[in-house]
Amino acid sequence: MLIIGERINGMFKDVKKAIRNQDKGPIQDLARRQVEAGASMLDINVGTASANPKETMVWLVEATQEVVDVPLSIDSPNLEVVRAGLEACKGSALINSTTGKQEHLEKFLPLAKEFDASLIALTIDEEGVPSTTEGRVDIAMRILATAMEYDIMPDKLYIDPIVLPVNVAQDQPAKVFEALSQFQMLSDPPPHSVVGLSNASQRCLERPLINRIYLVMAMAHGLDSAILDPLDKDLMDAMITAEILLNKSIYSDSYLQAYRMSAAPA
Amino acid sequence: MLIIGERINGMFKDVKKAIRNQDKGPIQDLARRQVEAGASMLDINVGTASANPKETMVWLVEATQEVVDVPLSIDSPNLEVVRAGLEACKGSALINSTTGKQEHLEKFLPLAKEFDASLIALTIDEEGVPSTTEGRVDIAMRILATAMEYDIMPDKLYIDPIVLPVNVAQDQPAKVFEALSQFQMLSDPPPHSVVGLSNASQRCLERPLINRIYLVMAMAHGLDSAILDPLDKDLMDAMITAEILLNKSIYSDSYLQAYRMSAAPA
Repeated sequence: MLIIGERINGMFKDVKKAIRNQDKGPIQDLARRQVEAGASMLDINVGTASANPKETMVWLVEATQEVVDVPLSIDSPNLEVVRAGLEACKGSALINSTTGKQEHLEKFLPLAKEFDASLIALTIDEEGVPSTTEGRVDIAMRILATAMEYDIMPDKLYIDPIVLPVNVAQDQPAKVFEALSQFQMLSDPPPHSVVGLSNASQRCLERPLINRIYLVMAMAHGLDSAILDPLDKDLMDAMITAEILLNKSIYSDSYLQAYRMSAAPA
Repeated sequence: MLIIGERINGMFKDVKKAIRNQDKGPIQDLARRQVEAGASMLDINVGTASANPKETMVWLVEATQEVVDVPLSIDSPNLEVVRAGLEACKGSALINSTTGKQEHLEKFLPLAKEFDASLIALTIDEEGVPSTTEGRVDIAMRILATAMEYDIMPDKLYIDPIVLPVNVAQDQPAKVFEALSQFQMLSDPPPHSVVGLSNASQRCLERPLINRIYLVMAMAHGLDSAILDPLDKDLMDAMITAEILLNKSIYSDSYLQAYRMSAAPA
């Protein structure tokens, strides 16, 4: 399971404040702690904290790279902000994200090719977010086909079936889970899949519980990466245990500890 | 989700002691507490606590029925013990369990018919426990076909794909989950499915965590009942949340509390 740490995001108050103060400390602390907790990649999102999102993206990328070596997920809907972030990345990167809209694919696929970056693609098209499993799978298929035209193979794509808050769209999780199963049959090797986990519980009271149950159910259907808060220990325990039950890491009585000891050192 | 409380089992020390002392108190306390926690059925198992398993089964059934109204799961491999338990049941009952072995089916299917009881059938046959998904589904299919000959419909059957401890058979959970998915395509309406959840974590260190992650993954694949410890609050929270995400009960901010308030009063 590829864990993409969500915490360096200007939507969080601590990050917003650090951006405003141009204070690298809290950013670097979050970078280190997320990697120590098991994140193999860190998402970098300026949020709404800055009037100069390009500069802020570069600043965040540089601050993060000073303390950790993991690949970064450059998170912005704005192509120029993403390009600036990619240019600042020392290592490999993930673009977060394009949609399945033709105009978005035509912009982001060439950018991914140019930087040899992987790409998150949301199953949204000109009609919006589909409410069915089939709608999600159709868009994923079109994304894969369009990516092929740009010589981008499925294993560079992370398909995101769009997680909606359970309190506003309670019929959607089962459709997302089924879509995750079907994504695996789209190609061989299949594309990766990813979710923005925290969306599942937005404005819900039992956020951590809902997040971890959602994650485990999605993993049971083949989810292979997620943007989440690796500092949530119960969430990580659930994820690690799900990997054991899926036979993706080896059981020992101290498997939780073994996972944490093998997490990339910050 | 049908929760079958596992605690009235002579394998547990407190129950064994109560049986030896012929003390109804602890049995009735466990009956009440399990129902209050959300069990809609209680498993009754003499274990190895008694030299007179038939008498002890009847005593346990009667003690339980004095304080709760839920159906009972009469749990013994011994046909005569099961018959004695069924005769003592006031309401509907579940027989726990037959295997798919022909000699077992020929004994237990007529018994189920005679008492109009439901029946748990383990996917074990003359060859033992299958190590594959297909092996489990094949046996389930034969069980369904044989049951039909006795005029027992699939909705009276609870197919148990056999949960093995993860520390000795780490490749098996994924096969069990896939078997659960496939059971749902065996007939219309499909048979029920059930697991003996605590087996998943036998002799493991992180028993409660493994149990609840196993349960959630199995529910994601269509599991509709489980024999488990409803007094494990974290386990029940996970189950209740999984039902919310599968859209099987209605979300509200206080959905955990709502579930518990609607649990059958003891």
